[in-house]
Amino acid sequence: MGNVLDTRNRVEVCFTPEEYHNFKEEFDIVVVIDVLRATTAICTAISKGVKSIIPVRSIDEAKKYKSKGFLVGAERKGEIVEGFDFGNSPYTYINTDYADKEIVLTTTNGTKALDIAKNAETVLVGSLINIDSLNNLLSNKKSNVLCLCSGWQSKFNLEDTICAGAIVDFLISTGNFTSIEDSSIASKYLYLSAKDNYLGYLKSSSHRRRLINLNLNEDIKYCLTPNQTDVIPILKNGKIIKL
Amino acid sequence: MGNVLDTRNRVEVCFTPEEYHNFKEEFDIVVVIDVLRATTAICTAISKGVKSIIPVRSIDEAKKYKSKGFLVGAERKGEIVEGFDFGNSPYTYINTDYADKEIVLTTTNGTKALDIAKNAETVLVGSLINIDSLNNLLSNKKSNVLCLCSGWQSKFNLEDTICAGAIVDFLISTGNFTSIEDSSIASKYLYLSAKDNYLGYLKSSSHRRRLINLNLNEDIKYCLTPNQTDVIPILKNGKIIKL
Repeated sequence: MGNVLDTRNRVEVCFTPEEYHNFKEEFDIVVVIDVLRATTAICTAISKGVKSIIPVRSIDEAKKYKSKGFLVGAERKGEIVEGFDFGNSPYTYINTDYADKEIVLTTTNGTKALDIAKNAETVLVGSLINIDSLNNLLSNKKSNVLCLCSGWQSKFNLEDTICAGAIVDFLISTGNFTSIEDSSIASKYLYLSAKDNYLGYLKSSSHRRRLINLNLNEDIKYCLTPNQTDVIPILKNGKIIKL
Repeated sequence: MGNVLDTRNRVEVCFTPEEYHNFKEEFDIVVVIDVLRATTAICTAISKGVKSIIPVRSIDEAKKYKSKGFLVGAERKGEIVEGFDFGNSPYTYINTDYADKEIVLTTTNGTKALDIAKNAETVLVGSLINIDSLNNLLSNKKSNVLCLCSGWQSKFNLEDTICAGAIVDFLISTGNFTSIEDSSIASKYLYLSAKDNYLGYLKSSSHRRRLINLNLNEDIKYCLTPNQTDVIPILKNGKIIKL
């Protein structure tokens, strides 16, 4: 570790977008994770044929796109913002209503993380629903990988950390990756405790409670069900497309 | 949780001093934790009769005290800073050489966290070596408790988190406290996995590796051995004294 003879690449975890400045210099690939629900919704959308998604950070920016005739989704604190076409439920895209469309999206946490990471060499979109496919892709790269969790309003969240831990655990198991940060070690530990029962493990998590209060239990179950797609969305020139 | 009828107090965990601004408004008691090694050293010093410790943030400030004739400890990146009397090893105080003295101390992470928290109503110094005594005191207070981990150079660390998790676990077990933040839930999970073997659990942690490289294995063992003292240091008017 840190040894000059160690040729392994690094896989690390950053818990919140606010901490990204501590990590960004050292990583070629950033995987943005917002399990509940932005990156799960984006993976669903791309897997159901949506042509591209333009992530924007503010409601104002989203309104500008809306006034130009774009299809625009906007979510804040778990709810659809008034005047927009949809929020960040993955079920929005499940019936391929938006196949071949270009969509604009702003969410509380996920699109903020995408915006913060946008200047990295490669920005991928990760979630539990595409985790095996993502892990296979990453394991074939000779690059340092940073899992950037979106968190909840600048704070740590458990579901993104567990998803990041699944990536750390897999990449380390290949023998070609190592982690030197305690955030990565903790993510792996938390993933190993959670992996046999995500719903049970996360039952007391703050975000799950928040969404259950909004009657979004079906969304939660969907977001916590691994490997529903092998699509890996990538951010290129401000748009998320299929890799 | 968050219910108006819920009369329980909160116990939460903030992983780094940088995130303290997200938490500080809501807590009456802040427990500052830097297991390896600042708060362990401070608990040791106070238990061995040191009269008071003035924590300062910068080397410059420490130099000013030194030039005035104070006994001054200064540590950066695990090593004693040249020109100072000692660093942050708890063994500095073990032979009561400094009993009844006033000491000035600056460390990489711990004294920064103390400085950031200094305006809270009550600031206590926590570590594994005084954990049961601290937990008993906190359980008798009707106050919201924040465990402020010092981290490592602005990043999450595992040993402080586990110590914080021990506090969360104990206070929740009394029935009078609740946690609503995922950072607190994760800390508790990590503590429960670690508690039967701190040394083994932390063997891959970044800070432990760092200190082992500096031949500080005895310090590590000492810092990870719970309940060596029942002293609880408190920060009052810029000085840490015995509660």
